[in-house]
Amino acid sequence: MTKIALLTSGGDAPGMNAAIRAIVHSCQHHQYECIGFFHGYNGLLNDEWQALTHADVGNILQFGGTILKSARCPAMCLPKGPKQAANTLRKHQIDALIVIGGDGSFRGLEALKAHWEGQIIGLPGTIDNDLAGSDNTIGFATAVTTATHAIDKIRDTANAFERVFIVEVMGRHSGHIAFNVGLATGAEAILSFENCDPADTAPQLARLISQIQVQQQHNHDSFVIVLAENLWPGGPQALKAQLAEQAGIDSAVCVLGHIQRGGSPAPEDRLLATELGLEAVNAVSRNQDRIMIGKQGSTLQAVPLSGAINDGKPVNGRWVAAHEDVLTEYLIKHSE
Amino acid sequence: MTKIALLTSGGDAPGMNAAIRAIVHSCQHHQYECIGFFHGYNGLLNDEWQALTHADVGNILQFGGTILKSARCPAMCLPKGPKQAANTLRKHQIDALIVIGGDGSFRGLEALKAHWEGQIIGLPGTIDNDLAGSDNTIGFATAVTTATHAIDKIRDTANAFERVFIVEVMGRHSGHIAFNVGLATGAEAILSFENCDPADTAPQLARLISQIQVQQQHNHDSFVIVLAENLWPGGPQALKAQLAEQAGIDSAVCVLGHIQRGGSPAPEDRLLATELGLEAVNAVSRNQDRIMIGKQGSTLQAVPLSGAINDGKPVNGRWVAAHEDVLTEYLIKHSE
Amino acid sequence: MTKIALLTSGGDAPGMNAAIRAIVHSCQHHQYECIGFFHGYNGLLNDEWQALTHADVGNILQFGGTILKSARCPAMCLPKGPKQAANTLRKHQIDALIVIGGDGSFRGLEALKAHWEGQIIGLPGTIDNDLAGSDNTIGFATAVTTATHAIDKIRDTANAFERVFIVEVMGRHSGHIAFNVGLATGAEAILSFENCDPADTAPQLARLISQIQVQQQHNHDSFVIVLAENLWPGGPQALKAQLAEQAGIDSAVCVLGHIQRGGSPAPEDRLLATELGLEAVNAVSRNQDRIMIGKQGSTLQAVPLSGAINDGKPVNGRWVAAHEDVLTEYLIKHSE
Amino acid sequence: MTKIALLTSGGDAPGMNAAIRAIVHSCQHHQYECIGFFHGYNGLLNDEWQALTHADVGNILQFGGTILKSARCPAMCLPKGPKQAANTLRKHQIDALIVIGGDGSFRGLEALKAHWEGQIIGLPGTIDNDLAGSDNTIGFATAVTTATHAIDKIRDTANAFERVFIVEVMGRHSGHIAFNVGLATGAEAILSFENCDPADTAPQLARLISQIQVQQQHNHDSFVIVLAENLWPGGPQALKAQLAEQAGIDSAVCVLGHIQRGGSPAPEDRLLATELGLEAVNAVSRNQDRIMIGKQGSTLQAVPLSGAINDGKPVNGRWVAAHEDVLTEYLIKHSE
Repeated sequence: MTKIALLTSGGDAPGMNAAIRAIVHSCQHHQYECIGFFHGYNGLLNDEWQALTHADVGNILQFGGTILKSARCPAMCLPKGPKQAANTLRKHQIDALIVIGGDGSFRGLEALKAHWEGQIIGLPGTIDNDLAGSDNTIGFATAVTTATHAIDKIRDTANAFERVFIVEVMGRHSGHIAFNVGLATGAEAILSFENCDPADTAPQLARLISQIQVQQQHNHDSFVIVLAENLWPGGPQALKAQLAEQAGIDSAVCVLGHIQRGGSPAPEDRLLATELGLEAVNAVSRNQDRIMIGKQGSTLQAVPLSGAINDGKPVNGRWVAAHEDVLTEYLIKHSE
Repeated sequence: MTKIALLTSGGDAPGMNAAIRAIVHSCQHHQYECIGFFHGYNGLLNDEWQALTHADVGNILQFGGTILKSARCPAMCLPKGPKQAANTLRKHQIDALIVIGGDGSFRGLEALKAHWEGQIIGLPGTIDNDLAGSDNTIGFATAVTTATHAIDKIRDTANAFERVFIVEVMGRHSGHIAFNVGLATGAEAILSFENCDPADTAPQLARLISQIQVQQQHNHDSFVIVLAENLWPGGPQALKAQLAEQAGIDSAVCVLGHIQRGGSPAPEDRLLATELGLEAVNAVSRNQDRIMIGKQGSTLQAVPLSGAINDGKPVNGRWVAAHEDVLTEYLIKHSE
Repeated sequence: MTKIALLTSGGDAPGMNAAIRAIVHSCQHHQYECIGFFHGYNGLLNDEWQALTHADVGNILQFGGTILKSARCPAMCLPKGPKQAANTLRKHQIDALIVIGGDGSFRGLEALKAHWEGQIIGLPGTIDNDLAGSDNTIGFATAVTTATHAIDKIRDTANAFERVFIVEVMGRHSGHIAFNVGLATGAEAILSFENCDPADTAPQLARLISQIQVQQQHNHDSFVIVLAENLWPGGPQALKAQLAEQAGIDSAVCVLGHIQRGGSPAPEDRLLATELGLEAVNAVSRNQDRIMIGKQGSTLQAVPLSGAINDGKPVNGRWVAAHEDVLTEYLIKHSE
Repeated sequence: MTKIALLTSGGDAPGMNAAIRAIVHSCQHHQYECIGFFHGYNGLLNDEWQALTHADVGNILQFGGTILKSARCPAMCLPKGPKQAANTLRKHQIDALIVIGGDGSFRGLEALKAHWEGQIIGLPGTIDNDLAGSDNTIGFATAVTTATHAIDKIRDTANAFERVFIVEVMGRHSGHIAFNVGLATGAEAILSFENCDPADTAPQLARLISQIQVQQQHNHDSFVIVLAENLWPGGPQALKAQLAEQAGIDSAVCVLGHIQRGGSPAPEDRLLATELGLEAVNAVSRNQDRIMIGKQGSTLQAVPLSGAINDGKPVNGRWVAAHEDVLTEYLIKHSE
């Protein structure tokens, strides 16, 4: 009987539970055995696991987090970790390992593959949406939803005070969250890797100052800046200080932080996770190996794991242009 | 100077405000004049309108409803209505009319075209997602989100009581909402046009009864049936009665109703509405006519208005199969 | 060692889990043993239970439903049920039984007392808030919150269409939910037991019609009627038909239903449930018996169980007057 | 004709709009004229105002922020400000001024009184709940709700990673938000003014470290610390550094920030604001002066403005004890 192992790894993402559920149901459909390892790759190193049947995955798809727990596992970057993990898989006579995680987790999977003969399948699970091969990753829609509703709340108080807010959103080194959230909230400015060079922020700062001044002089309204984490040297507090020093602009800082990682998954994430989870087991049955299952448009795709990690997935350039050339053009026009 | 008129028509859908905002910004970018008519086509019949500039559309994209109000307008199906509407457009020297609405609204647009020389552009705005030419319609994601979270709440009480619930969702005559919501909530049964013949519900009823009995005997858990509106003869109350009469199964009925039409739009709807709104004005500038702007994958598409109305857009068959053949297979297996 | 049994009974209410958690923690503080029976009184009849320590109640206070399940138990109204329940309690050497539920559950507790020597303590757990002796019952705040946000959504579509909506809320035979929700949503009319005689609805109907007509003629706006369940003969559909027949007024009906019973409990319910749960065990340690623990103002109170059941708790008359004499006066004035 | 002026001042709080609406309706009931000044006291200094009738306050009670805008106004602390404000009030022949705000706003009101003969009435509007004379202030329930649901999300990722989180909540110099939110989320530790001396944090730090170590060794679970703003010297980052340095404990910091000020008001805040708003105008009609309207239990109270500002309102001591002596006792016991 084919036996599948599964684990969730790296930063947890809402929808991981829905993926686990789908994998387990699909295993039962294919009459495969399924076991889950706990705490990411640590579960493989420590041989911590449980068998999974449909009774174990009832009533979990609506909850954030992951019933298998997650963790980062630095040992997988050392020579010893992957070997030990391979031994555990061999001991349990695992035929295929499915890992739900981000690029670090996929690198671990590749490292493991050097020591293990079984199939390896990745599912894109990260709120940052920074994996190629799938339009969206599991957790991204929920993070965007949470950040959007948080900024809606901030907008209320920003409007009442006609105030400038700098709101830092997650995204690691990509602007997917920043641009989705910035456009969804009608942010007056979006500062992200796609439109701002961290090595030379002066032009962006000058432009921002002139836009804020236009807004304050002409529209008497709030001004929300959505800032991608890891972009601005010194972070949002540095930006706040620069606005104050260079133009006497008072602003408030909000770092949305880990609320973006949790919460009941958005329906979109539940559906994506369900589809990808079902297809991962189908891929095992087709003897596919070293792939990530993604969704592009409405099509499920198996893409090489290496490509998912290494190929970038840029933010839609149309969006960047729409934001700067059309939606906030009234600020630019007035400032010239 | 090019002059664009815009209105929202038919059942309102969350995200219509975001579309209005984007159209107005895009008009300013193209240096077009923009006016909005109120109450759908009635505004054209009664010459009720206001000029729209970016100051009028500040701080609206996060709210449900539509600042232009909406309405159904039976007069547009009579010969007189479209003529009168055309007169109003001529009087205001309108070059292009953009209508955000569903298939009824698009039929009105076609009727109007027979009497008017300007360009007509439709944007898909309906929670039902029943228009061809766009993967999603504006409002659909919000309706799915609202219904999903409502059923999450119902699941709590269903679990506490190990009870059977029949939950009716909207969708007019398509199962897009039913299947999205059913899969997103892990519904034990989804009854919709795609998997159930309203003219012969007996087989579906028999199957449902046997699945409920399996669940009650083996799993001792709740059982949620997501039912598409307009499907079951006699509606959810008839289904409840049949379950009681034919198998002694007690169930509770919830009709989610109009909560699915309102609320702050989901980020996905705000983004879709923004993209479609911007593109609608671009289409005017390209002299396009009798089209609907849709989004397929990540590509914006102009499709013939007639196609949007008449070509069906089926629910993804993979989803129907996934639900019945894999995700609820444990109920079927046991019941054999 | 003192041994406490606990169960949740009757209609489940969000916050029951928080009460269970507090009781278990308080038992450990007092060094009491604690066991929970499942499915309300059925657990006593069927001897279905589990021991409860703090590890069993981690991470449950934020979830709706009840980990002990709930049920109605008609057998407790027959002579045999209470006897059998008493035998189970004796078998487990229970010193005190804590029941979280509504008036039916408390009647069961009283019936049981006739056959059992232990202490009985009730905690008010019902969304209807229809128990005397506590300002609020566990679950009430969540039901009000859910219904309020649902009507906010309905208001969006009502505004877009300038439409009349009849929204039925729960409450059994009291207007606590109706008045809290009606006032919180700015409903134009609230129909409940406090201001409408079910045996003679004609005056209320006439008044309602004249108010709707004022609104439609003068304010051109939406009109939301919050209707208490079990009030209007024939229910909301009858009211809709009467509005249509007697005045040609078109309206839409929404029955909010069981979404009011579920969902993550509002903070207010979590806090109330926690305080009452802790105090219930304190009451056991003080040898109190045949009481319900309630909260009045900021004071915890032990009230006789019989009073909680039999004394009515009227809706604040100030609220009824505020709604009719002040907040909706503009409708009445114009209609005179 | 009596003429009432009203303004919202200081940090905005969800529910202010509901209070404005109630005041306007109550003015119409009493046949008083009502005007609103913008931007807090600045509106008085700049003579920026609008007349308010019920048409102006339709459809606002469900939204955060304030239609009258708010601001801090340092000029009111100088001799000139109050004089100028008094002149504006005299110019408009105002009989009574109602201010919705916190203690700073009430001090401004007192300063104004020295130069003006009209009646002054305060309504408690601040998320911090730090005014005596009213059990709750307008905005407090919403802030608690927002922070609670935010920590629910953080709990998901904390559980997945079995991680320590330090979550800073607002509250200025009181622990009302910290204790309500900490208890509502089942926080393992609450650090606030009521149980921690900012001048000597060493004992609290030692206790915290030992509790975290117990949790990590015995329960293998997440650990959430709710920290009141302005308490810990150096803020949450300092606490994080101390946990790392003194005990090698890794933790993550979230500062919830301004999301706590915005959002659709909780029903509780809408109801409180409505009651207080109606009563404020009643107080004018009774010739009351220099009072704040509060609600204690279910009773509306007029309290001297000076008392509202100067008398402290401590956090319920029962709650502090419940948290430390009962709900988290398992952490303390194991650590001994």
